[in-house]
Amino acid sequence: MRHLISMEQLERRDIERILDRARSFAEVSEREIKKVPALRGRRVINLFYEASTRTRSSFELAAKTLSAEVINFASSGSSVEKGESLKDTVQTLSAYRPDLIVVRTPNVGAADLVARWSTAAVVNAGDGKHEHPTQALLDVYTLRERLRSLDGLSIWVVGDVMHSRVARSNIMAFSKMGARVTVCGPPTLIPRGVEALGCAVEHTLDRLADADVVYALRMQHERMTGSFVPSLREYAACYQLNGQRLSPRQVLMHPGPVNRGVELSADVIESPQALIGQQVAAGVVVRMAVLYELLAGRDVGTPRTSSPTPAPQLA
Amino acid sequence: MRHLISMEQLERRDIERILDRARSFAEVSEREIKKVPALRGRRVINLFYEASTRTRSSFELAAKTLSAEVINFASSGSSVEKGESLKDTVQTLSAYRPDLIVVRTPNVGAADLVARWSTAAVVNAGDGKHEHPTQALLDVYTLRERLRSLDGLSIWVVGDVMHSRVARSNIMAFSKMGARVTVCGPPTLIPRGVEALGCAVEHTLDRLADADVVYALRMQHERMTGSFVPSLREYAACYQLNGQRLSPRQVLMHPGPVNRGVELSADVIESPQALIGQQVAAGVVVRMAVLYELLAGRDVGTPRTSSPTPAPQLA
Amino acid sequence: MRHLISMEQLERRDIERILDRARSFAEVSEREIKKVPALRGRRVINLFYEASTRTRSSFELAAKTLSAEVINFASSGSSVEKGESLKDTVQTLSAYRPDLIVVRTPNVGAADLVARWSTAAVVNAGDGKHEHPTQALLDVYTLRERLRSLDGLSIWVVGDVMHSRVARSNIMAFSKMGARVTVCGPPTLIPRGVEALGCAVEHTLDRLADADVVYALRMQHERMTGSFVPSLREYAACYQLNGQRLSPRQVLMHPGPVNRGVELSADVIESPQALIGQQVAAGVVVRMAVLYELLAGRDVGTPRTSSPTPAPQLA
Repeated sequence: MRHLISMEQLERRDIERILDRARSFAEVSEREIKKVPALRGRRVINLFYEASTRTRSSFELAAKTLSAEVINFASSGSSVEKGESLKDTVQTLSAYRPDLIVVRTPNVGAADLVARWSTAAVVNAGDGKHEHPTQALLDVYTLRERLRSLDGLSIWVVGDVMHSRVARSNIMAFSKMGARVTVCGPPTLIPRGVEALGCAVEHTLDRLADADVVYALRMQHERMTGSFVPSLREYAACYQLNGQRLSPRQVLMHPGPVNRGVELSADVIESPQALIGQQVAAGVVVRMAVLYELLAGRDVGTPRTSSPTPAPQLA
Repeated sequence: MRHLISMEQLERRDIERILDRARSFAEVSEREIKKVPALRGRRVINLFYEASTRTRSSFELAAKTLSAEVINFASSGSSVEKGESLKDTVQTLSAYRPDLIVVRTPNVGAADLVARWSTAAVVNAGDGKHEHPTQALLDVYTLRERLRSLDGLSIWVVGDVMHSRVARSNIMAFSKMGARVTVCGPPTLIPRGVEALGCAVEHTLDRLADADVVYALRMQHERMTGSFVPSLREYAACYQLNGQRLSPRQVLMHPGPVNRGVELSADVIESPQALIGQQVAAGVVVRMAVLYELLAGRDVGTPRTSSPTPAPQLA
Repeated sequence: MRHLISMEQLERRDIERILDRARSFAEVSEREIKKVPALRGRRVINLFYEASTRTRSSFELAAKTLSAEVINFASSGSSVEKGESLKDTVQTLSAYRPDLIVVRTPNVGAADLVARWSTAAVVNAGDGKHEHPTQALLDVYTLRERLRSLDGLSIWVVGDVMHSRVARSNIMAFSKMGARVTVCGPPTLIPRGVEALGCAVEHTLDRLADADVVYALRMQHERMTGSFVPSLREYAACYQLNGQRLSPRQVLMHPGPVNRGVELSADVIESPQALIGQQVAAGVVVRMAVLYELLAGRDVGTPRTSSPTPAPQLA
């Protein structure tokens, strides 16, 4: 495995290997010294064409915890860059000899292009509405920690499935791990043919009792008003997950940040059935495992040492 | 001491303990290798809801000098966030298991809320016009270095006391350390009842000769014109500290950045009686001491070692 | 050598010494652990008054690879700062006891002022249209790696020479290294008296076959339309470097980022005769050598060790 671009490329055993390693990293966060030298001296570039403090800082923390060097390379979201200039940027960055590039862009397929243009390993941290595979991995991790296994679980993904890279990646990941996935939302927000990903479709929450896990998607501000939903109030009336609709035995997830009072009511956000904080924490250790998989994976079991490097011979 | 939110919470002996430790850190800055491993592997998050390159970089440098890991988490000042979303942000950040959060916000009381919501230690780096305790500590440090003790000193705080968190924290700190504090400014910029903090009030500089130390506040741009002062020129005419008004024996301080020609004239900024540069330098070592106090304070005398951490057992 | 402000201050032997050291650093980038402890615990401040992700990240990577601590101190480009406030900023930063300040500003001569005001070593990373000496050094490095020596080479610098700090620094550097330099561009973009720098002037590409090396300057967006060139299309028609105009034996360089289809055609950017990627890679190792020269240069041959520093004695 050289890059992580899409959940499509991962088999169930790949997912399990990565998540088992993530668990072995989890105890690092409990220590007083939250750092291991596994990737010391490796260079990770965060190339973010969309503002995302959460995802960027999660990757940054993962890399630093493994003692890698991190360079943040953010482009203002306003100058949406064309394929050509993305290529030039990647060629520039390649000259820095990064070991790994984490890339987020608003363009479907851009992470794959970066992987072709660069000699570094590439992690897709979101490419338009296409995929966000580390989100799916951290969600599977969170569920495994809570429920041991996804086999046979019924998972409902509720909300704007149409525009959600999280939905796409998660439907695939949940299915591969043995869950039955149902997507639910207004017809305007469910893409035609989504069943091809192996999920069922519902347009109301009437049968929500069937779900063991309810995964609420973030309602993007730009879709909140407009042609996709008649109004926020109407959306919340039909699809908001709240204490009336959820049973305490159901587990609730959300990729954050939450629009309180829209897709989730305030009460369920704080309830013990919500795993939102656990998802964020899982993000760091799962990304550590992904970085480790891509950069040190061939040496599994013999992590690279961090012996001090001598200074070069100087003239 | 778990958090540093307000000068109210500190006794004189607490201040002295922190500043004595700051002095022991001061010699690190003189070394060729400006770094100690005291907080190696600890995670510090800088959560800044207001742009402040100076304060942010001072905390960042303090944390890095102690070998802590720093994650900057800046929110654009434009999207002034509501209590709810501050809570969500803090819950997200808590999932990163930070050891300490440094928080600056435009909202009075926000640092206290962060401390309640998070398991990390919290340092208030300014919450609206409420408090900025590390500024007060670095100012006391600077004065102690120059004048040995604050006992019996007369300290005038001149300018916009009304809107100044620095004034509030400093009046308390100077008083606790034994100084007599006088605040001076136009009636529109002196809050009613400020005497309750233990200071005298003057509305002119006529008796400035009484002061051993003159502490000029920054005139905020947004108050420079408007209802608080008739005009900048008028303000400067009445309250600017300059070579005519100051005696060379008086010590001059300012929290920076200075509006040259407004609250201070150019000549006094550069004069040896001004301690502005010393204040900035003190900021780094005092913040090192505060971080150390909060993170390692229970082990005083046995600083945590930085022995290399072994890599976790990997599957 | 205390600062690097201008190519004027460097003799040929200085350039050669720095570039020889850069070559010794180049192998660090090939290693698995891309880091040496040469400048461990030193403080480098990046003070950027103009947005420049490329140059800033190149210096950052250079400093981090040498194990120095880096603080980024960026000023929004909009608030073009006056001399006075630059002075105040430098005085503030000096209180942080930086070992070195990298400064980019839109103002000619500003780096020299910073060097006067600060006790730190200063590297000019571009001061208006004056100079950008590390760009010149990395370009000489790139040419030496490809062609062994610049002695007797004919180098054409093509484009907006008038507004280019890169042109100014490079003309001097190429000449000092033994090359014959010709500048070429429309009369409106060639400064009068440029011959005083020791170069010839051409206004057309008719005699481009004379060049061994063609160095294309970036056409700044703000000059692309306006009084300097009649139109972009016209400029490209007369001065664009493309497959028709270049011979495969000629080497092509560009400081980046490229305006595809303006100063360069897409085909030559990707051709093996273009050294653009090599220039970026050279930037990191040359800047490592400059930092090393300024901070450790007196101890050449005995790089400073990185033995762990004991914690200070604490009260």
